Amino acid sequence: MYTPREIAAFEAGIKLGALYHQFVGTPVSVKTADSLERAIERSISLQPYVKSVSVRIDRSMLSGNVFGYSELSGKMIRAAVEIAYEGARVRAVLEYDPEKDYPMMHLE
Amino acid sequence: MYTPREIAAFEAGIKLGALYHQFVGTPVSVKTADSLERAIERSISLQPYVKSVSVRIDRSMLSGNVFGYSELSGKMIRAAVEIAYEGARVRAVLEYDPEKDYPMMHLE
Amino acid sequence: MYTPREIAAFEAGIKLGALYHQFVGTPVSVKTADSLERAIERSISLQPYVKSVSVRIDRSMLSGNVFGYSELSGKMIRAAVEIAYEGARVRAVLEYDPEKDYPMMHLE
Amino acid sequence: MYTPREIAAFEAGIKLGALYHQFVGTPVSVKTADSLERAIERSISLQPYVKSVSVRIDRSMLSGNVFGYSELSGKMIRAAVEIAYEGARVRAVLEYDPEKDYPMMHLE
Repeated sequence: MYTPREIAAFEAGIKLGALYHQFVGTPVSVKTADSLERAIERSISLQPYVKSVSVRIDRSMLSGNVFGYSELSGKMIRAAVEIAYEGARVRAVLEYDPEKDYPMMHLE
Repeated sequence: MYTPREIAAFEAGIKLGALYHQFVGTPVSVKTADSLERAIERSISLQPYVKSVSVRIDRSMLSGNVFGYSELSGKMIRAAVEIAYEGARVRAVLEYDPEKDYPMMHLE
Repeated sequence: MYTPREIAAFEAGIKLGALYHQFVGTPVSVKTADSLERAIERSISLQPYVKSVSVRIDRSMLSGNVFGYSELSGKMIRAAVEIAYEGARVRAVLEYDPEKDYPMMHLE
Repeated sequence: MYTPREIAAFEAGIKLGALYHQFVGTPVSVKTADSLERAIERSISLQPYVKSVSVRIDRSMLSGNVFGYSELSGKMIRAAVEIAYEGARVRAVLEYDPEKDYPMMHLE
């Protein structure tokens, strides 16, 4: 048996894993980052038990390749998702950890 | 050696293959389809030699699952991409073929 | 603060969300399903705190399109992942729920 | 109207675009690269008009993150696809161009 809080944590993990692996690889630039952020937020918001999603792509990492654009990578993303499940609420975050050089996901 | 038109056709194929496999699986509903269409158009527009991209998600296929949303599938997408390469122009389309029950990609 | 079990549940969610959204849309047939199952298992096994991953694609859903193959969809996948985090162990499953007609993820 | 060779070039582009955007982001290590290469080859081989697909992941780029694995990126992939369409044959390649620092796709 699992507590509502454990299940909420599980659901939060699903959303961050989904967000990451659905959108990593998408072409993106400073001009299109806003549109992509909104589309990611809105799509993940549809999933079960989501109260809110916010996504921010780090513009300083969008310097562009030889054709003038970048590809979305995990390190560029700062995302937060709030889950509500049977009275339990959890908030989980994806953000780049420069010390580990890794896009960490954690419960807040 | 390849002609500019052959290369333009190749580039058009890349864009449709990319569009399809990047975004299929994305949660989508009638409320979020417009945002997703714009984000797909804008992201694929960044790729080399693209003159225009238009994407339309078939709302009639967005009836929703038990949680009230759908997942983007190839059959839902109508996309057109125009490529210009060294004077050659091609236009390629992804659209559902109901007879074949398959999301066909073809040069127009 | 979160308990090790809550964090393990979170990590389990990440893995199922990742697995689903990375691989949905992949072309697959009865002949290639085994290769794809192994590749999914091995890739997700690399992620943090994973003890085991098993993936099974439902062959009965691989009847094939006009070109003789299918695309991996969530409903075809039965996956189980075991997570160990600071003494806590959780097991999470993705499996099609025919009553809900939805690929459910849950903690076991 | 398009020639068989133009259509073959288009189909080759589809396959490289699909391969790239389906699998970029997949966790991978030196131990699992072989399994992933085979799964990619087999899945893309199912698509229409494909005669052969070969995929090679550059092991020298798999040095690993803080958790000991990498994520598949376009720069790591060397892929070749052969298409046959109504008597026309084309071969297309995805490979990292170190001068451009870009994963180039081209017809050969």
